[in-house]
Amino acid sequence: MSDLLPSWRPGPVRDAVVGFLDAVHDVEPDDRLACFDNDGTLWCERPTYVQLDYLVDLLRAASSEDPAVRERPEYAAVLDGDRAAIGDLGLVRVALALTELCQGWGPEEFTDSVRDFMGRAQHPTLGRPHRTAVYQPMLELLDELRARDVTVSIVSGGGTEFVRAISRDLYGVAPELVVGTLVAYDYDRDPDGRPRLRRTASVVGEANEGAAKVSAIQTHLGRRPQLAAGNSGGDREMLEWADGQDGPSLALLVDHDDADREVAYTSVAQTFAEAEPITQVGDRLGWTVVSMARDWSRVFPDGA
Amino acid sequence: MSDLLPSWRPGPVRDAVVGFLDAVHDVEPDDRLACFDNDGTLWCERPTYVQLDYLVDLLRAASSEDPAVRERPEYAAVLDGDRAAIGDLGLVRVALALTELCQGWGPEEFTDSVRDFMGRAQHPTLGRPHRTAVYQPMLELLDELRARDVTVSIVSGGGTEFVRAISRDLYGVAPELVVGTLVAYDYDRDPDGRPRLRRTASVVGEANEGAAKVSAIQTHLGRRPQLAAGNSGGDREMLEWADGQDGPSLALLVDHDDADREVAYTSVAQTFAEAEPITQVGDRLGWTVVSMARDWSRVFPDGA
Repeated sequence: MSDLLPSWRPGPVRDAVVGFLDAVHDVEPDDRLACFDNDGTLWCERPTYVQLDYLVDLLRAASSEDPAVRERPEYAAVLDGDRAAIGDLGLVRVALALTELCQGWGPEEFTDSVRDFMGRAQHPTLGRPHRTAVYQPMLELLDELRARDVTVSIVSGGGTEFVRAISRDLYGVAPELVVGTLVAYDYDRDPDGRPRLRRTASVVGEANEGAAKVSAIQTHLGRRPQLAAGNSGGDREMLEWADGQDGPSLALLVDHDDADREVAYTSVAQTFAEAEPITQVGDRLGWTVVSMARDWSRVFPDGA
Repeated sequence: MSDLLPSWRPGPVRDAVVGFLDAVHDVEPDDRLACFDNDGTLWCERPTYVQLDYLVDLLRAASSEDPAVRERPEYAAVLDGDRAAIGDLGLVRVALALTELCQGWGPEEFTDSVRDFMGRAQHPTLGRPHRTAVYQPMLELLDELRARDVTVSIVSGGGTEFVRAISRDLYGVAPELVVGTLVAYDYDRDPDGRPRLRRTASVVGEANEGAAKVSAIQTHLGRRPQLAAGNSGGDREMLEWADGQDGPSLALLVDHDDADREVAYTSVAQTFAEAEPITQVGDRLGWTVVSMARDWSRVFPDGA
């Protein structure tokens, strides 16, 4: 076996990926673009999104400084890990309340805070730091794409600035190549008259999921990708967008079927108002469905 | 004299630019960012914006195919060059009507149409194609910045996709590094069920001018620039944003004072509800104000 993609086991899936790496030479270099979802595609998203862990960490710190924080029902439910209460309040309401924890912060303050968390946070079940719960086979693929002058971007449902805070370090992806859910900024001037930007608690437009990912790829990156990789119903439209064109393309879907080394679960996609497992959608549409258990010889990087 | 910036005449302005090129080595390479306005900063914006010329060209073609196009008062005013009628209708209304000419188009169709226009359009007074009415000294500066690992972006009040159609060719700037005024896309499926994006006639958010440029730099590019270059009141906040930070910075303002080689005019900035010439704002705030007549030995590239 060659040195190419060493953590991908031989088989039809690896063949399809290698076939794309060969075929992409037929695409004009300036047009080459690959879009990767982040949660569950580049790093582990279970048992909770890393961004949620970060916000809960912030909330715990705020609450230990000022116990009155608990008086807000959304915060009490999160601090108590009370899933029933969170369900009653509604996840969106709870998420927006957590976003308010960073309201008024400047972009650098937020980035520093995320990096501080990521420097110390442990994954709750995998026995490794969050920052190393990234998929080694995908890191190898990102490198091989860049070696072929493919622009590698992250198109995430998570917060744009959250992902940017770690994207260069974990994936080698520059901030302008991260497209996610955007929190709006307020522009004003500080008491000395200098301009400043401060985070609000409002999302610009809508969450970056489903068809919104397709529009965001065009408005942010300005071209159509030849490769899209995802793992959930929110990635469906993006994978179809990469797939449904002339010329080389690859729609890559990660199937989380490896309970031993990661977590076993399946996301669903809304298809004609019915929920359909996303892996079934992938099989039906002819995508390349990656079985973590079968196709990856290694899931996470060695060492720390 | 060295080979550095050959079209910049020796003097304090060139010294400031060269000083910045030296000092930017003190900035972390990953953080290095320069933001250039387009109209009037990288290419000629008079007597009309090139994008407006493009839309008028589209309108003329539509009108010769179907004379009924003239029945719409906004279109009749533009076709007749009737400035009074345009003023009565309002420029925003006329501009939105022109944007409707491309409604329903896919991104590639729009890009092809702009490139077709730019391949043949002549500047009305300079005696050269539009695509060569770009400022040679700025092209030299873009190259020197990139040679120092500075990410070079365009932050324009013009349409994002319009500028992207020519940014790689004219300036070497990739589409993901173009930030402008965005027309929203509709996502749907064609009769065969394949996903598609089509242009609407609505702007996402607001026009990319003034404080909106500062927010857009952060949301799109994810960091603060060390250099911002502009020429009009709509660039003021962006220049202050680059200028008002610790470490190396350069706020570069182009003063159009060269009636012989280009056009002489001055934009104004709204300052505390009063209109102030932008060059006066620049002098007051200590920006580097470039006199085209004095500081540039050459304005446009040689040859065609």
